[in-house]
Amino acid sequence: MIHETEIKVRFAETDALGHVNNTNFFVYMEVARIEFFEKLDTSMSINKWPFIVASAKCDFIEQTFFNQTLIIETTLSRIGSKSFTLTHRMKDKETGKTVAKGEVVIVHFNFEAQQSEVIPPKMREVLEQYLISVA
Amino acid sequence: MIHETEIKVRFAETDALGHVNNTNFFVYMEVARIEFFEKLDTSMSINKWPFIVASAKCDFIEQTFFNQTLIIETTLSRIGSKSFTLTHRMKDKETGKTVAKGEVVIVHFNFEAQQSEVIPPKMREVLEQYLISVA
Amino acid sequence: MIHETEIKVRFAETDALGHVNNTNFFVYMEVARIEFFEKLDTSMSINKWPFIVASAKCDFIEQTFFNQTLIIETTLSRIGSKSFTLTHRMKDKETGKTVAKGEVVIVHFNFEAQQSEVIPPKMREVLEQYLISVA
Amino acid sequence: MIHETEIKVRFAETDALGHVNNTNFFVYMEVARIEFFEKLDTSMSINKWPFIVASAKCDFIEQTFFNQTLIIETTLSRIGSKSFTLTHRMKDKETGKTVAKGEVVIVHFNFEAQQSEVIPPKMREVLEQYLISVA
Repeated sequence: MIHETEIKVRFAETDALGHVNNTNFFVYMEVARIEFFEKLDTSMSINKWPFIVASAKCDFIEQTFFNQTLIIETTLSRIGSKSFTLTHRMKDKETGKTVAKGEVVIVHFNFEAQQSEVIPPKMREVLEQYLISVA
Repeated sequence: MIHETEIKVRFAETDALGHVNNTNFFVYMEVARIEFFEKLDTSMSINKWPFIVASAKCDFIEQTFFNQTLIIETTLSRIGSKSFTLTHRMKDKETGKTVAKGEVVIVHFNFEAQQSEVIPPKMREVLEQYLISVA
Repeated sequence: MIHETEIKVRFAETDALGHVNNTNFFVYMEVARIEFFEKLDTSMSINKWPFIVASAKCDFIEQTFFNQTLIIETTLSRIGSKSFTLTHRMKDKETGKTVAKGEVVIVHFNFEAQQSEVIPPKMREVLEQYLISVA
Repeated sequence: MIHETEIKVRFAETDALGHVNNTNFFVYMEVARIEFFEKLDTSMSINKWPFIVASAKCDFIEQTFFNQTLIIETTLSRIGSKSFTLTHRMKDKETGKTVAKGEVVIVHFNFEAQQSEVIPPKMREVLEQYLISVA
């Protein structure tokens, strides 16, 4: 399965080179990721937030511009015992062309105890539905 | 007295019109404001943060560009019983030319009780040093 | 007439006080404003962008939080010869409660000539439809 | 050689989890990168900007908080014919502890022709001074 998020590029996200500043793709991925998280834990709130970003990466393939609408496809490429890797393909809504590809490693984290925790079975079950074999 | 803050415009703060996006001046004012707050309450921490923004305003006088260095002069134009008004003049460091003028109303706020509180005498004393009579 | 824009608060827009950082309301108003601009000039592109922000103001009425959905109602409170004033009421989508009120002065601007220009009749005609008498 | 950039965490860069939102580390790396670029081409201006980001990555090692001062050490881990890889180590200024590590692939790019270009000898010479053998 693929989770889809739609983002319309804001003017404030462009820079003086006329295109979307690279740093905003990490904001787009966060929007997609949090939508995805809502599927994993319906009891989730800021006071009991169970995830932390361990690593984030983005490959920029095409320049993106103001007012462009992007679709972010979110899937999983890996599930570990305490962490998983989200894969984001960002494409232009109209043409379907890939503009960027991202990968974010998420750790299941207990902010109160300040330590990582094993992914519970119910969460793992949902995660597995989005796991894509790259073979 | 005037509190001075130096800011160098970041590339990510520009937009496709080639200048600094207007929304970033509110970030600059926040940087200046928080530096100023540190003079008001040395025991200040996020867990005991005593201020909330009630209103923010900025007049944009000159366009500002990437790599420009700005000086933000912070003074006060008003002290009330539970709030005060900070006045920010943002000028180009090199030429001294004013590029923007801002005004921010700050309420002395108790986040735990979720209500405004009277400004304590010690804080008022420091505030008065930055009060500028516009007469 | 009222132009409506829907915004869902992003996590990256919150701050360590747990609420939406005040500076982001200016981003929200920019999103609403640009949607509104599209009604004024269908030939608008970044290369021929005809507007510049002269002043922006926001009153913060209620704290706003992550994942909250806001409706931004955009109307006009003033049309001058070369500028106009947009008024934004931001309200919680669910409760209808006003969370912030903004006002932005826009100048009809020629970036090539770097000077303000009279609002053309056709643009004025559309603007007048959104003019609200405050009487 | 190592290029050093000092960044003080802004309040607007924190999020509701109380720490610096991950997306801001990419802004910090951009600040460091652009300072570094100024050593490569003194004639650089927005109108003749010669670089584009092909890929950006960041590993988050320690949570970072409001008002913390970071030192970003910038070096190079690779120089190709048309691109190079910048490596950023972000550390707490006071303790020296590494809080994040980043890697950004930069392409020497001609925005007018919209294509990558070979790195000129003079630029390569400066780059080589920052090349760190990981052996």
